[in-house]
Amino acid sequence: MSRNYKLIRTDGRAKRGQLETVHGTIHTPVFMNVGTVAAIKGAVSTDDLRTIGTQVELCNTYHLHVRTGDEAIRKLGGLHKFMNWDRPILTDSGGFQVFSLATLRKIKEEGVTFRSHIDGHKIFMGPEESMQIQSNLGSTIAMAFDECPSSRAERDYVQASVDRTYRWLVRCRNKMAQLNSLPDTVNRDQMLFGINQGAVFDDIRIEHAKQIAELDLDGYAIGGLAVGETHEEMYRILDSTVPYLPQDKPVYLMGVGTPVNIVEGVYRGVDFFDCVYPSRNGRHGHAYTHRGKINLNNARFTFDETPIEEGCGCPACRSFTKAYIHHLFKAKEMLGMRLLVLHNLFFYNHLMEEIRDAIDGGRYGQFRNDFIDLYESENEK
Amino acid sequence: MSRNYKLIRTDGRAKRGQLETVHGTIHTPVFMNVGTVAAIKGAVSTDDLRTIGTQVELCNTYHLHVRTGDEAIRKLGGLHKFMNWDRPILTDSGGFQVFSLATLRKIKEEGVTFRSHIDGHKIFMGPEESMQIQSNLGSTIAMAFDECPSSRAERDYVQASVDRTYRWLVRCRNKMAQLNSLPDTVNRDQMLFGINQGAVFDDIRIEHAKQIAELDLDGYAIGGLAVGETHEEMYRILDSTVPYLPQDKPVYLMGVGTPVNIVEGVYRGVDFFDCVYPSRNGRHGHAYTHRGKINLNNARFTFDETPIEEGCGCPACRSFTKAYIHHLFKAKEMLGMRLLVLHNLFFYNHLMEEIRDAIDGGRYGQFRNDFIDLYESENEK
Repeated sequence: MSRNYKLIRTDGRAKRGQLETVHGTIHTPVFMNVGTVAAIKGAVSTDDLRTIGTQVELCNTYHLHVRTGDEAIRKLGGLHKFMNWDRPILTDSGGFQVFSLATLRKIKEEGVTFRSHIDGHKIFMGPEESMQIQSNLGSTIAMAFDECPSSRAERDYVQASVDRTYRWLVRCRNKMAQLNSLPDTVNRDQMLFGINQGAVFDDIRIEHAKQIAELDLDGYAIGGLAVGETHEEMYRILDSTVPYLPQDKPVYLMGVGTPVNIVEGVYRGVDFFDCVYPSRNGRHGHAYTHRGKINLNNARFTFDETPIEEGCGCPACRSFTKAYIHHLFKAKEMLGMRLLVLHNLFFYNHLMEEIRDAIDGGRYGQFRNDFIDLYESENEK
Repeated sequence: MSRNYKLIRTDGRAKRGQLETVHGTIHTPVFMNVGTVAAIKGAVSTDDLRTIGTQVELCNTYHLHVRTGDEAIRKLGGLHKFMNWDRPILTDSGGFQVFSLATLRKIKEEGVTFRSHIDGHKIFMGPEESMQIQSNLGSTIAMAFDECPSSRAERDYVQASVDRTYRWLVRCRNKMAQLNSLPDTVNRDQMLFGINQGAVFDDIRIEHAKQIAELDLDGYAIGGLAVGETHEEMYRILDSTVPYLPQDKPVYLMGVGTPVNIVEGVYRGVDFFDCVYPSRNGRHGHAYTHRGKINLNNARFTFDETPIEEGCGCPACRSFTKAYIHHLFKAKEMLGMRLLVLHNLFFYNHLMEEIRDAIDGGRYGQFRNDFIDLYESENEK
């Protein structure tokens, strides 16, 4: 039983929970809003996040380490003070960026040596370094340092990688315990989530899930999905793997995904999600609605005097029409990006509220069917 | 005596006035916030303008004509409805952009033929066309179509240009009267301001001021300054010319300027100002304070945990430190631009409030000296 997570109710495999943290309660299922370098791309501030119902902001350890630096942020009192956000923050481990962005990397048992994608300088990061950086940032929840093998990697490679990721997890846990015991640590209640890997090999994932479950961490993530495999593979892996993660701990599906992916993930027992889609799509002129995604660059909106979605309570829909937002994209005005990022994050945050209500009401199966039917009715592919 | 402008009090030559418009009262001296294509650059919306104390938004006729188009905006109910702003809007005439941005232009008595800077298509704009476009946009105040000769143009050229600008002004007045009498005009109470020109030739400016004053327009602007002449030349021209514009009408110094320029302009009898400096400087990392402009890109702000200016009530200063904003510029996050644009526009709007209070209190001379001393004490050149 987790000290901090309370499973309020289930509806099928869908879970309704709450995680008590030193920065307040997180009501799950939850979608975390991605603020890579301590800011949401699209000119969105933490003040805006309060307006659009954000529960958790996710920041990227690797990006903050190479730009401004975790040591500087520690001196400034940690991420919360730095960006003026008193609610929960989750930091990733940096592992994903090391394996996807950095160049010339070498993996050893100790950790990874690589070059910064900004200025090419050499960096070493292993489990201890990742924990130290996240401790400097003082996030609410730290993620374990792992390797995220390609969904197309060979079985032998994946097995060896997962074994090493397990050894790294043990080192993360030990380092975190040590850091949390130091008197001048920014957040001495920092939580640690472990990460399940195994590419698309269900048996490797299941064995790994069993192993990490025994470490009694604050939560468990499923990593290495939404990186090239099909949605069907993703759902199959969730079906096979989630049952081996503790039900009385939060389960986090990393980097996922579309509204439908999220509805399907909740259906399979996931509590936490994060994804750059709402902000990235917003910056490109795409907006989410319950009837699917629409492209505001499209000339068909030139004279459309309705909001993006009728009844939506976001700052864009409360004040502006599709015609105006279309004009902003045509004129390449930053305001267009900002309005759509606000709308899209509000849409995702509000979707999670609808999901929580449906589970509370014991009608999640019906909600899932209805949501997907409507969403796919007019979705622009 | 203007139907709409009330001169509340004077303090030396400084004027404290109010202009009643169909979109509400404008308290002068006022700084108009520039929203070129119906949006303030830097992801600032009309909702934000209400927060930062904006009285008037200025939009650019030429830019709106070539992108999205005034006909489309007319169909959408005019600029106010289009961008959800119910307070006053001033549109420029398009003349300045035609003479500074467009290519291959030919000036004749009828007007100007030029090519769009966006797609190169041929456009003709004369006084009647400018009035028609501004009528389609439905702004509160329209500006006369004029030529803005270079501050370095020869006397003969300037004299001929000013004579033509006068003939154009008469045509603008006639066209505006006709448009305002049509039943389906967006804003049938649209006002017209004439524009004084004459480059740096005081006598040409004075003769022109006398001529246009007789047309009994809603207000008068001084154009063609802040385009290359020195500040001293600008102040000299204001000293010589403003006395020949009606004191009981609003006087608008176009495209000006720095905080000190504004304080000096008010001292010389100016009511209205506009300038891209606060938004442009904000996008480049420069912030205004009462002690001068500072550059947030500077590494000296890395650990600065104070707001841009202590006591400032803007959305940036209320929530964020210089260290955080410095980080946002270093990380090239749009949010940095937005926060500084909000701060800078708030600074300008608030400066006008301080100016109005000083005139109300009969202490404008002292205010001017104190403001300039303090502003220049730490200003980064």
